[in-house]
Amino acid sequence: MSTENFPSATTLPAKDIGRLLLRCADRPGLVAAISAFLSDAGANIISLDQHSTTQTGGTFMQRTIFHMAGLSAARDALERDFAAQVAEPFGMEFRLTEAAKPKRVAIMASREDHCLLDLLWRNRRGELDMSVAMVISNHPDLADQVRPFGVPFLHVPAHKDIRAEAESRQLDLLRGNVDLVVLARYMQILSGRFLTEVGCPLINIHHSFLPAFVGEAPYRKARERGVKLVGATAHYVTEELDEGPIIEQDVVRVDHRHTVDDLRRLGADVERVVLSRAVLWHCEDRIVQHGNQTIVL
Amino acid sequence: MSTENFPSATTLPAKDIGRLLLRCADRPGLVAAISAFLSDAGANIISLDQHSTTQTGGTFMQRTIFHMAGLSAARDALERDFAAQVAEPFGMEFRLTEAAKPKRVAIMASREDHCLLDLLWRNRRGELDMSVAMVISNHPDLADQVRPFGVPFLHVPAHKDIRAEAESRQLDLLRGNVDLVVLARYMQILSGRFLTEVGCPLINIHHSFLPAFVGEAPYRKARERGVKLVGATAHYVTEELDEGPIIEQDVVRVDHRHTVDDLRRLGADVERVVLSRAVLWHCEDRIVQHGNQTIVL
Amino acid sequence: MSTENFPSATTLPAKDIGRLLLRCADRPGLVAAISAFLSDAGANIISLDQHSTTQTGGTFMQRTIFHMAGLSAARDALERDFAAQVAEPFGMEFRLTEAAKPKRVAIMASREDHCLLDLLWRNRRGELDMSVAMVISNHPDLADQVRPFGVPFLHVPAHKDIRAEAESRQLDLLRGNVDLVVLARYMQILSGRFLTEVGCPLINIHHSFLPAFVGEAPYRKARERGVKLVGATAHYVTEELDEGPIIEQDVVRVDHRHTVDDLRRLGADVERVVLSRAVLWHCEDRIVQHGNQTIVL
Amino acid sequence: MSTENFPSATTLPAKDIGRLLLRCADRPGLVAAISAFLSDAGANIISLDQHSTTQTGGTFMQRTIFHMAGLSAARDALERDFAAQVAEPFGMEFRLTEAAKPKRVAIMASREDHCLLDLLWRNRRGELDMSVAMVISNHPDLADQVRPFGVPFLHVPAHKDIRAEAESRQLDLLRGNVDLVVLARYMQILSGRFLTEVGCPLINIHHSFLPAFVGEAPYRKARERGVKLVGATAHYVTEELDEGPIIEQDVVRVDHRHTVDDLRRLGADVERVVLSRAVLWHCEDRIVQHGNQTIVL
Repeated sequence: MSTENFPSATTLPAKDIGRLLLRCADRPGLVAAISAFLSDAGANIISLDQHSTTQTGGTFMQRTIFHMAGLSAARDALERDFAAQVAEPFGMEFRLTEAAKPKRVAIMASREDHCLLDLLWRNRRGELDMSVAMVISNHPDLADQVRPFGVPFLHVPAHKDIRAEAESRQLDLLRGNVDLVVLARYMQILSGRFLTEVGCPLINIHHSFLPAFVGEAPYRKARERGVKLVGATAHYVTEELDEGPIIEQDVVRVDHRHTVDDLRRLGADVERVVLSRAVLWHCEDRIVQHGNQTIVL
Repeated sequence: MSTENFPSATTLPAKDIGRLLLRCADRPGLVAAISAFLSDAGANIISLDQHSTTQTGGTFMQRTIFHMAGLSAARDALERDFAAQVAEPFGMEFRLTEAAKPKRVAIMASREDHCLLDLLWRNRRGELDMSVAMVISNHPDLADQVRPFGVPFLHVPAHKDIRAEAESRQLDLLRGNVDLVVLARYMQILSGRFLTEVGCPLINIHHSFLPAFVGEAPYRKARERGVKLVGATAHYVTEELDEGPIIEQDVVRVDHRHTVDDLRRLGADVERVVLSRAVLWHCEDRIVQHGNQTIVL
Repeated sequence: MSTENFPSATTLPAKDIGRLLLRCADRPGLVAAISAFLSDAGANIISLDQHSTTQTGGTFMQRTIFHMAGLSAARDALERDFAAQVAEPFGMEFRLTEAAKPKRVAIMASREDHCLLDLLWRNRRGELDMSVAMVISNHPDLADQVRPFGVPFLHVPAHKDIRAEAESRQLDLLRGNVDLVVLARYMQILSGRFLTEVGCPLINIHHSFLPAFVGEAPYRKARERGVKLVGATAHYVTEELDEGPIIEQDVVRVDHRHTVDDLRRLGADVERVVLSRAVLWHCEDRIVQHGNQTIVL
Repeated sequence: MSTENFPSATTLPAKDIGRLLLRCADRPGLVAAISAFLSDAGANIISLDQHSTTQTGGTFMQRTIFHMAGLSAARDALERDFAAQVAEPFGMEFRLTEAAKPKRVAIMASREDHCLLDLLWRNRRGELDMSVAMVISNHPDLADQVRPFGVPFLHVPAHKDIRAEAESRQLDLLRGNVDLVVLARYMQILSGRFLTEVGCPLINIHHSFLPAFVGEAPYRKARERGVKLVGATAHYVTEELDEGPIIEQDVVRVDHRHTVDDLRRLGADVERVVLSRAVLWHCEDRIVQHGNQTIVL
């Protein structure tokens, strides 16, 4: 293929950009049917990523970004037509969103600031495609650091003896008000009831090591074992603690000269980067869950 | 989206797998037109990656992997029909290949063995999708290491005083016989005439540093400058020495304890990994050149 | 070597911890002489790193961390004795510092906040061993973000037409008051006179790419060239712009799906990590300059 | 510290280079005593790395590389004197080796070639400081690939039903003949008796994931779980399967587009790099075991 000049990038107004995320049993003609529907509706495909779990007979997933003049007004009709003409015949689950309507997000934290502040700071820079509705913490410590970002800081005391009342108060704040809850080093266990009733996905971050060190003082154990890598994993929250579908992972090299404090500091660096990537991808509608895994399109 | 069981991967026979790589000016309806053509032809899209250089008015590129029973027999007709019905109306360049027909590759080397042997070894393991037609070297040193792989080793002496004759002999060996030439630490400059007449793409590997160290003894200079990273770049060869479109890059961390020999050894490790990735991607028809860049789909 | 129980780490009070950084022509007996001096003075070596540029006849560098009860009171005598008994006979340059006396640091910035806020935030967490005396900016924009950290924000307008006056005002603020100046995306050139008169080292951060893209809009150029890595380099400032001794470098992988904005965002992530490592190492007296390189011990 | 010219590196003859690796309870005066001993013996310290597990009261480890004219002849006396004058008074374990006497190594493998060939190939290039005495395999498959390296290939059938006889034959070959056994994807369990009687350390390589996938088909499980990193761990072998002290670890990024075969291929790349680093460090006497960890000096 020959060469040509490279035009400088231009950006269309977000208000006319739509995202279509879908999943169904794989079968011939899917891409053609979806593309034809969008084309007939006057939408131009800007980017399209698809994935099939196997070459035949598996699950098909697709993320399509399209431009359509007047999307906001036409959105409901588009969704209805897609459901009737494509999704139903193909037995498809789908989600249609507008880039101009950022997700409403609550961040829950305890005393550690690194993940929380990094999310707030990135969002202020415009790096994350979200609107932070509130920060909920079971400790008052971080209020002064959160409020300058113009975000409500809500102190809801919580520990294992008052879990039920605490979760009720949290649910009153969250239910219907947010599209995503981010656990940014929130150090309380959440009950299955909470996960069901909150009505939106939750993303959590935790450290990860090879081998795994469970229980108390993982960084001390990791140092005693002489690990050469310290990492973090961001995942969707399910009732199985720290076992939900992995969204993103990364590691940093360490050696015997690093103290336990050094490991904790380096681990915190990885945690905030990994969590921010996971939140960004979720807010951009890039992630399809499939069984206990995620596909990031 | 809910969860379900994850089927184990199955692989279709390579003989019915086709790859369609294409590029054209972006405009509405492209994905729909291509998908409809393949669907009508009885081909099922297994994977599809596309990229547009800008949201509107840029260049559109797409790589489609499809399954089509009896592809080998139907290939010529399919190509002709695609050209007439899609490529011509949309002003499209395209390439249609069969996964069952691996590219014929020549490897050119000098005295250093690391990139050459790594390619031969990976190919024997079935990791690279290629058929190595010959190894050409301007030194006889590596013959005993190459021949056990069942690959012809051809010694064509070459240095700057006999470049023209050497290149003529090399062209006699290569022209029409190979689809790709890999320069695996081939330490002679190739003329513009050679690049034109060989009639296929060439991939080269070279070390890379930040900042760049040109001329003799780059590893010694890099150590004297105290660089913290040593890397390698694989690129298509153009007449501008080491300036062709970048296919892949990677680096490894180094520090003051590494001697010049250590840097060379670590650099060699990066070179062989980076070169093998570039060759694999080329052989899988993943790479679209666009101006002086590559898009790896 | 057999195994035994691993005691949990304990930390001595910083007030009795000293650091000795030295450099001289290599010759037999250096480590022995230095160790004997410290041992005789009642100091216990906690850690010792040394490096020789060549196996014989090169330059010898050593960083020693030691514990000595009552160091603060004894420091001046210790320094005098070391100079007379060791440094002078061996023709040695050295620096003796106390861990309990953090370096006084000024941060200079312009409009971009990522490096500046990351340093302030890490310092508040206790990750950096420094005392931030002031932030100087040629723009007022970041005042509200800096002052909550309890650090003076000083607005000194500067651009190329008023460089001389601006630098005079900056020198009035800095001279004698700080041990280090960190340029955290300070977008003005500093004159040779400034570098001489400020009387302390300066550390700068800049993006880095392979190949290098000089001048305006480097991220746009990097995207047009299809680079696969985006990085950053922290270095000491010399009169040669961006050419001073490299302290630290790192990179992050990118691909064709990243927009220019994505590259800038990912580059900013690397910049803040790389700069913070360089500042930490400097504040811990880990860095020996040697010619145009640094050795990080 | 000011700047000066940087001399080019020169290398002393290996025959006069010694390595002293030691470990003892930490106490004041250790570095001074060791340095004074070497200095008095006419040895010049080329490099010295030490580590203490805690600032006081922990374990002290040191690796010293020194140059001493006529080392080979003087070695036994030097060892005896060091034992009497330093090791005994300080309760020290130590090992004194000569760089000119590479370790004798046996490699055990099964059917997979990637780790085995990489070690042989690196050793032929002079990258590893070892002499390969033999390759032992429980399958005949790799004979033709091993013998061109000039290394004996010994086929000792082994599976769980004939473990005792197989291990007896292996021990007959190994005992007294080698200083290190490398398990380069040797797929049989070795008994505690074998580990005791072989009389030298063993290094093993295995894949590693986050989270860990135990049992059969780990790469398939890893893909089903959607891991974003695939890695490898090299460790000393103890009776606890895959639980011995970690020497080195590394990872590579993967995503949903990678098939199980891709993961296996990328994992193999990491395995061979990680194993070769571990073997190199062991052969250079860099590794001190301490409890269930290693310190790599």
